[in-house]
Amino acid sequence: MKFQEYLPVWEKLSKAQQDRILGRLTERTVKKGEELHGEASGCTGLLLVKSGQLRAYILSEEGREITLYRLFDRDICLFSASCMMKSIQFEVAVRAEKDTQIWVIPADTWKSVMEESAPLANYTNELMASRFSDVMWLIEQIMWKSLDKRLAAFLLEEAAIEGTDELKMTHETIAAHLGTHREVITRMLRYFQSEGLVKLSRGQVALIGKEGLEALQE
Amino acid sequence: MKFQEYLPVWEKLSKAQQDRILGRLTERTVKKGEELHGEASGCTGLLLVKSGQLRAYILSEEGREITLYRLFDRDICLFSASCMMKSIQFEVAVRAEKDTQIWVIPADTWKSVMEESAPLANYTNELMASRFSDVMWLIEQIMWKSLDKRLAAFLLEEAAIEGTDELKMTHETIAAHLGTHREVITRMLRYFQSEGLVKLSRGQVALIGKEGLEALQE
Repeated sequence: MKFQEYLPVWEKLSKAQQDRILGRLTERTVKKGEELHGEASGCTGLLLVKSGQLRAYILSEEGREITLYRLFDRDICLFSASCMMKSIQFEVAVRAEKDTQIWVIPADTWKSVMEESAPLANYTNELMASRFSDVMWLIEQIMWKSLDKRLAAFLLEEAAIEGTDELKMTHETIAAHLGTHREVITRMLRYFQSEGLVKLSRGQVALIGKEGLEALQE
Repeated sequence: MKFQEYLPVWEKLSKAQQDRILGRLTERTVKKGEELHGEASGCTGLLLVKSGQLRAYILSEEGREITLYRLFDRDICLFSASCMMKSIQFEVAVRAEKDTQIWVIPADTWKSVMEESAPLANYTNELMASRFSDVMWLIEQIMWKSLDKRLAAFLLEEAAIEGTDELKMTHETIAAHLGTHREVITRMLRYFQSEGLVKLSRGQVALIGKEGLEALQE
């Protein structure tokens, strides 16, 4: 599939605008685990995921992480181009969770087209609103849900994304998604194991009681 | 001051677009404490603050609140018009914290102009990015800062907004801003009092050790 087919408003851009984007577009392949954009990277550009999986997260001063949202096929990462808008006063980091193919659109190119094109500006609005919704969901989780519910929801989501109930993940990694410490996750997973919800082995969490996890996440 | 002067992109709209907005605009005065927009209100419209102060917050199922951001003179509340964008998958509530004068612009009017006008769409983008930044700041506070630091920062911010070190606020109200329980705030305020940072009396918190609070909030 061509780049044009990934951008829903492509046909609403003028030929000149289309050419401006195509002329500056680059394709990149990133390996699983690679950092695509750091909090101090400046303006990497907009990232359009062709195939694969990215994770956007923030870091505390002490190096603790929390996952903000994931990006899958056809998703666009705006905040790796935060220089594009002066009101974006925060930085996210982006890492590949699988081998991922992306297109990179320089921030100044996107910005210059967006300033002329109501369709692209409105599409950008929808993208931001969608990420905003992800982050509001996260706030509600953090504020109103206890960690056992958040962990159950996270394990079920991972199983759905990966298409398997045997998750290859360390406790450290899970802690980084949920913004907590490894010890806290280990303790909670052991409790889940004692309840027959999961089975733990080295570097792996197998979901053996999904009904129980589903009941817990409510 | 006229409405036109409050909207920075006014001159970039066509005469027809300006007339469409002016024709649907209404002015409203809301009393301190009044709810302008509830989580289940549907689409109240965009709220432009002429003078006064609004507070946007979310509610848990159990009725606990947390403040997302405040709106002051010239600020625009987008999320009271969330029907405008299909990707906004959350609801906020908005309450007046002072007697407030606002203009209400119906969501469908704003949307119809935004769809044609790149300047208005880009301005809307900046508004959303600005609120997104507020919410990201909140996540960082919740995730990485302990409650004593958050409470110190909140008291100093309130004193700056109100222009006084004698805050007329109940512990209940402070708890609703910070998303916690009254008992937790009472305990922390008593600790602050024992440290000589505040002086508590009925319905009032006086900041008597601002240097100490400033040191604490870092």
